[in-house]
Amino acid sequence: MIREKYARLAYHRFPRTTAQYLGHRRVDTMPPEEGLPDFHPPPLPQEDPYCLDNAPPNLGYLVRMQGGILFVYDNKKMLERQEPHSLPYPDLETYTVDMSHILALITDGPTKTYCHRRLNFLESKFSLHEMLNEMSEFKELKSNPHRDFYNVRKVDTHIHAAACMNQKHLLRFIKHTYQTEPDRTVAEKRGRKITLRQVFDSLHMDPYDLTVDSLDVHAGRQTFHRFDKFNSKYNPVGASELRDLYLKTENYLGGEYFARMVKEVAREMEESKYQYSEPRLSIYGRSPEEWPNLARWFIQHKVYSPNMRWIIQVPRIYDIFRAKKLLPSFGKMLENIFLPLFEATVNPQDHQELHLFLKYGLPSRTSEAYADGRPGPLGTEVGIAVASTGPGQSLKVTGFDSVDDESKHSDHMFSDKSPNPDIWTSEQNPPYSYYLYYMYANIMVLNNLRRERGLSTFLFRPHCGEAGSITHLVSAFLTADNISHGLLLKKSPVLQYLYYLAQIPIAMSPLSNNSLFLEYSKNPLREFLHKGLHVSLSTDDPMQFHYTKEALMEEYAIAAQVWKLSTCDLCEIARNSVLQSGLSHQEKQKFLGQNYYKEGPEGNDIRKTNVAQIRMAFRYETLCNELSFLSDAMKSEEITALTQ
Amino acid sequence: MIREKYARLAYHRFPRTTAQYLGHRRVDTMPPEEGLPDFHPPPLPQEDPYCLDNAPPNLGYLVRMQGGILFVYDNKKMLERQEPHSLPYPDLETYTVDMSHILALITDGPTKTYCHRRLNFLESKFSLHEMLNEMSEFKELKSNPHRDFYNVRKVDTHIHAAACMNQKHLLRFIKHTYQTEPDRTVAEKRGRKITLRQVFDSLHMDPYDLTVDSLDVHAGRQTFHRFDKFNSKYNPVGASELRDLYLKTENYLGGEYFARMVKEVAREMEESKYQYSEPRLSIYGRSPEEWPNLARWFIQHKVYSPNMRWIIQVPRIYDIFRAKKLLPSFGKMLENIFLPLFEATVNPQDHQELHLFLKYGLPSRTSEAYADGRPGPLGTEVGIAVASTGPGQSLKVTGFDSVDDESKHSDHMFSDKSPNPDIWTSEQNPPYSYYLYYMYANIMVLNNLRRERGLSTFLFRPHCGEAGSITHLVSAFLTADNISHGLLLKKSPVLQYLYYLAQIPIAMSPLSNNSLFLEYSKNPLREFLHKGLHVSLSTDDPMQFHYTKEALMEEYAIAAQVWKLSTCDLCEIARNSVLQSGLSHQEKQKFLGQNYYKEGPEGNDIRKTNVAQIRMAFRYETLCNELSFLSDAMKSEEITALTQ
Repeated sequence: MIREKYARLAYHRFPRTTAQYLGHRRVDTMPPEEGLPDFHPPPLPQEDPYCLDNAPPNLGYLVRMQGGILFVYDNKKMLERQEPHSLPYPDLETYTVDMSHILALITDGPTKTYCHRRLNFLESKFSLHEMLNEMSEFKELKSNPHRDFYNVRKVDTHIHAAACMNQKHLLRFIKHTYQTEPDRTVAEKRGRKITLRQVFDSLHMDPYDLTVDSLDVHAGRQTFHRFDKFNSKYNPVGASELRDLYLKTENYLGGEYFARMVKEVAREMEESKYQYSEPRLSIYGRSPEEWPNLARWFIQHKVYSPNMRWIIQVPRIYDIFRAKKLLPSFGKMLENIFLPLFEATVNPQDHQELHLFLKYGLPSRTSEAYADGRPGPLGTEVGIAVASTGPGQSLKVTGFDSVDDESKHSDHMFSDKSPNPDIWTSEQNPPYSYYLYYMYANIMVLNNLRRERGLSTFLFRPHCGEAGSITHLVSAFLTADNISHGLLLKKSPVLQYLYYLAQIPIAMSPLSNNSLFLEYSKNPLREFLHKGLHVSLSTDDPMQFHYTKEALMEEYAIAAQVWKLSTCDLCEIARNSVLQSGLSHQEKQKFLGQNYYKEGPEGNDIRKTNVAQIRMAFRYETLCNELSFLSDAMKSEEITALTQ
Repeated sequence: MIREKYARLAYHRFPRTTAQYLGHRRVDTMPPEEGLPDFHPPPLPQEDPYCLDNAPPNLGYLVRMQGGILFVYDNKKMLERQEPHSLPYPDLETYTVDMSHILALITDGPTKTYCHRRLNFLESKFSLHEMLNEMSEFKELKSNPHRDFYNVRKVDTHIHAAACMNQKHLLRFIKHTYQTEPDRTVAEKRGRKITLRQVFDSLHMDPYDLTVDSLDVHAGRQTFHRFDKFNSKYNPVGASELRDLYLKTENYLGGEYFARMVKEVAREMEESKYQYSEPRLSIYGRSPEEWPNLARWFIQHKVYSPNMRWIIQVPRIYDIFRAKKLLPSFGKMLENIFLPLFEATVNPQDHQELHLFLKYGLPSRTSEAYADGRPGPLGTEVGIAVASTGPGQSLKVTGFDSVDDESKHSDHMFSDKSPNPDIWTSEQNPPYSYYLYYMYANIMVLNNLRRERGLSTFLFRPHCGEAGSITHLVSAFLTADNISHGLLLKKSPVLQYLYYLAQIPIAMSPLSNNSLFLEYSKNPLREFLHKGLHVSLSTDDPMQFHYTKEALMEEYAIAAQVWKLSTCDLCEIARNSVLQSGLSHQEKQKFLGQNYYKEGPEGNDIRKTNVAQIRMAFRYETLCNELSFLSDAMKSEEITALTQ
């Protein structure tokens, strides 16, 4: 019930079945859109996605950061009176009470025993299901025409844009740029222009000799439990110059090289047709200019693909910026991250590019013009983009991520006594839960404001449970729509059971874990899948972890081989990945079936998903069984209470 | 010493280092070609590989099968006198003595202890090497210009031609043929011509609806320890009609569909540039016509690729043919397999196609003519092939394989009392060792005859040690140049140590084993590699086992991920695969370095192999150390014997 409240406040998703058992409401009377996030549908063919005439007018609202949260005021007078616009605002006290409630729950002995036993039961029940029904499931799939594992939709639910190409691709691209434009100016240092040739000369390197070994971006045995070493692998040949030049959106070339590589990855995905991905781009919060710059990069280089949706990742590195005196307080960092979004929401007309980036992407690839993606003055480029506009597709930022090494310990314990972000001026980094609360709080307000205006909303999808403290998973249980990794659910039966009951999607990346935190054979993915947790497969960083050209397929193939997953298992994971993703309602209907939002077998269209109805029925009945157990117990307790 | 004798007799390979320690001969005085098999070099650009003027003349020899072995007589008179041509002929009695010698050795207690301890020592020594030198090895690779794991040559040393495409490829090909030529006659049944449409109609199937699930050629949990189920997976949709039509060389279309798919696989390999494979084609021994038919299929459809070499696999299924009364005796089967080869060797002019198939392949792909690969009358097709000829490459059959389910038990115990093949007329199948001896014996005679004529020789490369009795590995220790699988070496320390000392190449396919005989995590590949056994990675059957388009890369990627292999490990395996393969001396020089045939670091050219010299030195010193231990022990025993 606690999670349901937080999900409702932020327009996050909550399973209808679980809601029904909690609230004694009938699922069949719920309108289909209830509980779905607000992702804009693709524009109709006759619509012009760049037509700013339709952009909502300037509301003239004023937005101010107070105590780490952005408040919206209808006008100056209301601001003076400190009467914010009527939106749900988070309450830190309630939050900390809820947090401590769950923290108490997960350490309560009898609850632990109960959850542990139910989870064991779930696993055994699946084994039994498998033994009895494996052949029937496969028979169902065999008689399902035209659909198999290869042509069901799969979404790479967790992938960092800066590592979305594989090591060989990056190597080839670097060589190609050196062959075709060695004399191009690619950087400026103390007023002196530097050509590509000079960059490599200064590194004493001839790109012809470069190999994936000397590039050295691949994780290996040396990165295990060494997130620091892993992070430095982002620097090709160990040189941060090359990272800036090839893997960043802001540099002398306006991030052109990075854009070109991302687009090459996108083209391969479009050709494969059934694969989608949700690359994560960074906003650091050092300056409010990051957002317009990123939007400009996106629009200038036309980094559009119908097979990609975008997520913004915010690294938890306030301490580094603070130490470099780039930021006065944590509050300023939050302001830099969120204020531009509020302003673009209140007044889209004055923040055209950002509004477009949040709302729509570029027209589909019919326009060949973008082969030459050189950056030019902003006005002209946008001019061209608008002029060459065709039928677009829904493409926008669909969520936020919070990233960094979770195994780093923090001395601070988050509570309602913690200094608020405005006065968090020490060089100490706030703890994970602090970051999560303030990101959630601002996303919640932003989503409510956008919803009011009929604009799309965002999901919070943090990295969580990859390492570090178990409390991370408690924070995310309240604040996140879905998470990445979730390995540590292994260690807490109560949380694992709660994640099961609330069917919280978990994007797992066993190959990434294998190089960083957990050996492949010990990865809990198979166990989670068997128990019925809502898991999907994702690559995390193809540049660092994968060998073949098809990173996502490599991920599925290895899981299938090592764990002997059946076709039905694989297709169930693929279906989960589409559900978890930020694809629009319309796309999900197309990829999973008209009624995909319904739970249980009636939400499954085997002709599109290739998941056996036997499997769907098993999952649904099992979940209902667990829920009714709990709800019966609650009722009998109520009766006991009444009769006493 | 026993293995050395058998290797020398059959022109198989034997490591120079081991030979030196055995024979007290100095390696540096051996001519480079010593111990290398006789694979013809690629023809020079100005040479016409189809010019039959250069074909050796008819020697007029007579060839007769006696006791399961083909004897060559210079003329009729010699035949009457039963005085065969002076070639080394195998002696069954010696062979059985040698066999029992090794069988005694592998069960001898002290020998077992010694070998077990040495193997443990080898493994620990490698761990130590890894801990101390891992970073130095990687540093060596990083400073090695322009060569990395992606552009070292890799040979798929064990792959069945009939399963060399992946399941998705086969599916696409079937759909494509149905779309483009549904009304083509593709079969004939009782005089009635059958079109492709009728084939699918009779199976009540529309190829549009076909999926990889309904195709059902992929191995799964159901095939574990069920070789019979695995074998039936070769039938698409469970229909042997489709297997005949799409995966056979002999059918109404003259094997055109199969040829086209193999050529598509070959094109992909050529594009990837660094990958080679050695597909295995079947000769069953039912009739002497199989050879000319196979050669005709190869030449008519121009199944040529510079990236492929061919191996002939002989299934051990005499019992099936005998039961169907297709064969009177096992001797006849052997005669059908080998006599055509002897005849083509004695008189190439009268067996042009077979001679070409054994010697050279087709001209390189400059001729675009073969896009239309329809079969025509033989004469005209060969005429075209000769006319359009360009610079060819060395391409021929380079070896023989013996295949079937090794786990099948045989009641018969092979000895010199066993009935010889001429009188093996029972319906019982001869045991594994019987098959191996007679194949080896005939290959040995054939190789000697061909060597005498300056023609290429063949390697015997049987499946061995995948399952079944440990004695298989004893037979192969004597008779095989190299083997496929070798899993059961796990169970015999003496044999494992002998395979190490003799550096017998082992083509391992852990993904295949994972679906059939041994779970991936229990596969001994990593352990064998660490100890220094000569292992390579191969796919066995991409159609049944793999998911991605790049089956061999998938195999390497999974091994690398699951076992955390280093780049140096991977490149060592790739180098082993080239050494093991039937590529010519000239190609190996190009791919591995001028002196590749030398053992130890001087045989390694890191610029081509990307294997660190530190690793090579470690391997060489370790092997020399083991050998000198043994040779010192032998010497001191001799001295003891002398002084007593």
